[in-house]
Amino acid sequence: MKPQILKGTRDFLPEQVYKRNYIFDIIKSVFQKYGYLPIETPVMEHLSTLTGKYGEEGDKLLFKLLNNGDFLAKANKDALAANDSVGLIPSISKRGLRYDLTVPFARFVVMHQNDISFPFKRYQIQPVWRADRPQKGRYQEFYQCDVDVVGSDSLLYEAELIQIYDEVFSHLGLNVTIKVNNRKILKGIADEAGLSDQWVDMTVAIDKLDKIGEEGVRKEMEGKGFTSNAIDKVFSLLATEKLEDLNFTNESGKKGKEELLAIHDFLDESKLKNKVKFDMTLARGLGYYTGFIVEVSADDAVMGSIGGGGRYDDLTGSFGMKDMSGVGVSFGAERIYDVMEELDLFPTDVTQSTQIILLSFDKKCLEHAAKIAFKLRAANIATEVYPSAVKMKKQMKYANDRGIPYVIVIGSEEMENGIYKLKNMTSGDQQSLSMDDLLLKLQ
Amino acid sequence: MKPQILKGTRDFLPEQVYKRNYIFDIIKSVFQKYGYLPIETPVMEHLSTLTGKYGEEGDKLLFKLLNNGDFLAKANKDALAANDSVGLIPSISKRGLRYDLTVPFARFVVMHQNDISFPFKRYQIQPVWRADRPQKGRYQEFYQCDVDVVGSDSLLYEAELIQIYDEVFSHLGLNVTIKVNNRKILKGIADEAGLSDQWVDMTVAIDKLDKIGEEGVRKEMEGKGFTSNAIDKVFSLLATEKLEDLNFTNESGKKGKEELLAIHDFLDESKLKNKVKFDMTLARGLGYYTGFIVEVSADDAVMGSIGGGGRYDDLTGSFGMKDMSGVGVSFGAERIYDVMEELDLFPTDVTQSTQIILLSFDKKCLEHAAKIAFKLRAANIATEVYPSAVKMKKQMKYANDRGIPYVIVIGSEEMENGIYKLKNMTSGDQQSLSMDDLLLKLQ
Repeated sequence: MKPQILKGTRDFLPEQVYKRNYIFDIIKSVFQKYGYLPIETPVMEHLSTLTGKYGEEGDKLLFKLLNNGDFLAKANKDALAANDSVGLIPSISKRGLRYDLTVPFARFVVMHQNDISFPFKRYQIQPVWRADRPQKGRYQEFYQCDVDVVGSDSLLYEAELIQIYDEVFSHLGLNVTIKVNNRKILKGIADEAGLSDQWVDMTVAIDKLDKIGEEGVRKEMEGKGFTSNAIDKVFSLLATEKLEDLNFTNESGKKGKEELLAIHDFLDESKLKNKVKFDMTLARGLGYYTGFIVEVSADDAVMGSIGGGGRYDDLTGSFGMKDMSGVGVSFGAERIYDVMEELDLFPTDVTQSTQIILLSFDKKCLEHAAKIAFKLRAANIATEVYPSAVKMKKQMKYANDRGIPYVIVIGSEEMENGIYKLKNMTSGDQQSLSMDDLLLKLQ
Repeated sequence: MKPQILKGTRDFLPEQVYKRNYIFDIIKSVFQKYGYLPIETPVMEHLSTLTGKYGEEGDKLLFKLLNNGDFLAKANKDALAANDSVGLIPSISKRGLRYDLTVPFARFVVMHQNDISFPFKRYQIQPVWRADRPQKGRYQEFYQCDVDVVGSDSLLYEAELIQIYDEVFSHLGLNVTIKVNNRKILKGIADEAGLSDQWVDMTVAIDKLDKIGEEGVRKEMEGKGFTSNAIDKVFSLLATEKLEDLNFTNESGKKGKEELLAIHDFLDESKLKNKVKFDMTLARGLGYYTGFIVEVSADDAVMGSIGGGGRYDDLTGSFGMKDMSGVGVSFGAERIYDVMEELDLFPTDVTQSTQIILLSFDKKCLEHAAKIAFKLRAANIATEVYPSAVKMKKQMKYANDRGIPYVIVIGSEEMENGIYKLKNMTSGDQQSLSMDDLLLKLQ
C-alpha cells in the first residue's frame, strides 16, 4: 500500500513545526502581556451548533462525521428514496468539524458564563476545517489564531488590539500597515448620499475598490440603480483624507467618527512601530461587524491581508444570550508564515535544538558516551549520542545532516584521561576540554 | 437554541489550558534535551490508511467523515438496498479522524524518508479520536503524547527512554515506578515450559495477573489446555526476582535477558530519581511489541498506568517499507493531569498570567491608565486596564475574580504627581512608587 496524505492537508516536518511555533509563541506572549487568557474547544461540535451560522455556502463546506454503528437504521427513508444527500445528513450525522473559532467561542461563553469573569479576554489558536477545493495556499485543515474580548463596549479594547497587532508584527520583524475604519462611517456615508436603505449594496461595492478601481465601483453602483448624484456624493466623501475633516450631518456618521477619535485618544500612536491608517474604503466584506473594523497588510510582500477583525454587537444571540458586545481580531498565521519565508525573517537558530552529539569508536566508548550524555543533560545541554559504533563517516554524516553544532568523538584516550576534543562543526576548530570546562563552555 | 457540547468532548477553561501546557511544556523540554524533534500530522487521514490497522473493534471506533457534496450519487447501491451500513461506508466516506499517533507516524516516515535523517527521533503531541462510549475519564477526543525513534535497533534508545520517563516525572513532582520487561523473555518462558506454540495465550493470561491473581491465571491456562506441569514451570520462572538469576536454555529467553542487561549497562541507574523494576509479568497486551516493554505507574495514587511503550520490529511494513525497527513510549497526559490534581502538584502560579491591573475613577483617568499600561507592557509586565470608569467596587471585583496580584487605582492625584499606590492584593499592603520604581518593583 502506497502511503498518501489527503489533498488540502499537510504534514509538518520538524523545521516547519519549529518555525510555526516561533510565530505562535510570539503571538501568545503578546496576548498574555495584555491579559488575554487561553481557551480550547473540541474539534468536534454538534452539527446543529454549526449549521446555519456560515450561510448556505458555509453549510456545504462543513465536514460532517458519519454516526457510528448501524447508521442506516435511523436514516431518513424519504431522503434515501429521493436520493436527497442534503436531506439525509441530519439523520446520519450529528457531529461536524469546527469551521472557525468564533461560533465555538460563542457557545463556550454561554455555557461557561458562570465560570468566567466579564469582560472576558480570550485567545484561541487551533485548527479549523473547510471542504473548500484545495489549491496553492488554501487548505482544508488550517490554523486560526483569534483574540477577542466580550462583555464590554469600551473602545479601550480597540486600542489594545491595535497595539497587539503593532507589537506582534514588530517582534516578528514584519513591517505592516494597520488600516482602520468604522462600519458606522460607511453607514454615515450612505445616509449622507441618500442611500440609507441601500447601504449594504454600497458597502459591497466600495469593498471592491482595491480590485476593480473607482470606475468599476461606479459601474456596479449604477447597476444597483444609484443616481449619479448619490454616487458623486459617496466618492467626494471617500476622498476626504483626514478623519478630522470628515463632517457628517447624520448620527451614524458622527458616532463612527467619534469612536475612531476616542480610540485614537487611548493610543499613543507616536510610540507604535507601524503605521495606523484611517481608510474609509475598508469594509471587511459582509461580516457581522457593527462598529470598528481593522485589517493588516504586509508592506514588503504582495499578499492579501495577514490579519483583520472588528467589533460585533451580538456574539452569543443565537445561543440565547443577548447584548454581548465584543471586539476581536485574528492573525492569518498561514500567510504570515509564507511572508516570513519569502522575506527570510526566521532567525537561523529557530530550527536548531540539539547542541552536541557524541560519537564513539567501539561498544565500550558508546557506553562511556551514554554516561557523558547523562552529565551534559543534567546541566540542561541538549545532547544526542549516535546509537552504535558504526563507521565514523556514517556517524559524522548524521551529525552534519542534523545540523548539530558540536561533536565529540569518544575513543580509548578520552575514556582514560577524561579530556574531550570538542569540534565546532561550523568553523572546524577543535578544543580539548575537561568535563567541567565542557559544561562551562556549552551552558 | 441551548448551547451544548458533544458527550466525550471537553472545553478547556484558561486554568485547565495553563495546567495542561505546564505538563506538555515539561515533557517537550525533556524530549528536546534528548534530541527528539517535533512533527505534526493532519487530523484527517485517508480512511484506507487507518482501516485494518487497529483490528475489527478499532475499525468500528474510527470516526469517519461523510464525503462532501452529493455523496449519495456514488453510494454503493447494493449496500443501500441491503441496509448494510458497514458495506456502504467506503462509497460515501474517504476520510477518517486520526485514531492514534503511531499509524500517522509510520505513514509520515515512509512519505518523508528522503527528508529526514535516520535514526529519526521524533515526538508528537496531538489529539486523537475514538468512538468509545464516553464515561468518567474516557473521552472520544483526547491527547496522546508519543516519543519514538525509528531506524535503529540500538538498545541505547531503550536506556534513553527510561531516562526520559525518570526526568519528566521527577520534574512534574510525581514518584513513579518504571517497570521493564522484554517480550523475548515471555517467549523464553513459554519455550521453557513447552508452550512455544501457545505463547500468545500464555502472555494474554499472564497480562491478567494484576487483576485476577495467580489462581485466576492458572484457571485460564487450564482452560486453554496447558498441562499442570507446564503451568507450574511458568509460575516457577515468574517467581524469579532478579534478572541475573533467570537461566534459560532457549535462544529467545537468553536474548531477552541479554538485551535487558545491555540496557542496564547504558543506564546509570543510581542517578535516576525513580525506581526501575524488572517485572517478568509485564506483558503490555497483545500490541505489536517484539522486544523491550515498559510501563509506568504513579506510586502515590490509585490509577492505571500513566505511560508505556516498547520496541517494535516493523513500524512501516504495511506502507511498503521493510525492516524499520523502532522503540517508543507514550505519556498518558490525561491521567497524569488527573493524578497531579489529586496530589495537588501544580505550582500555584501556573495559572497566573496578568501581574497588575489599573483601575480608574473617570474617563480622563482611564486614558491615563492606558498610557501607563503601555509603559508597563513595554517593560514586559503583563498588564490589564479595567475598560471603563464604573463603580470602584465592580472594578475591584474583576481584579479579585481574576486573581491579579497587584492593583493601582488611577485618580486625579496620581495623574498630577506621577506617584502611584501599588496595592498587593494578597497582603493588602500599599506602596507609593514613581513610574521608574514601579517598573523596577514589578520586573
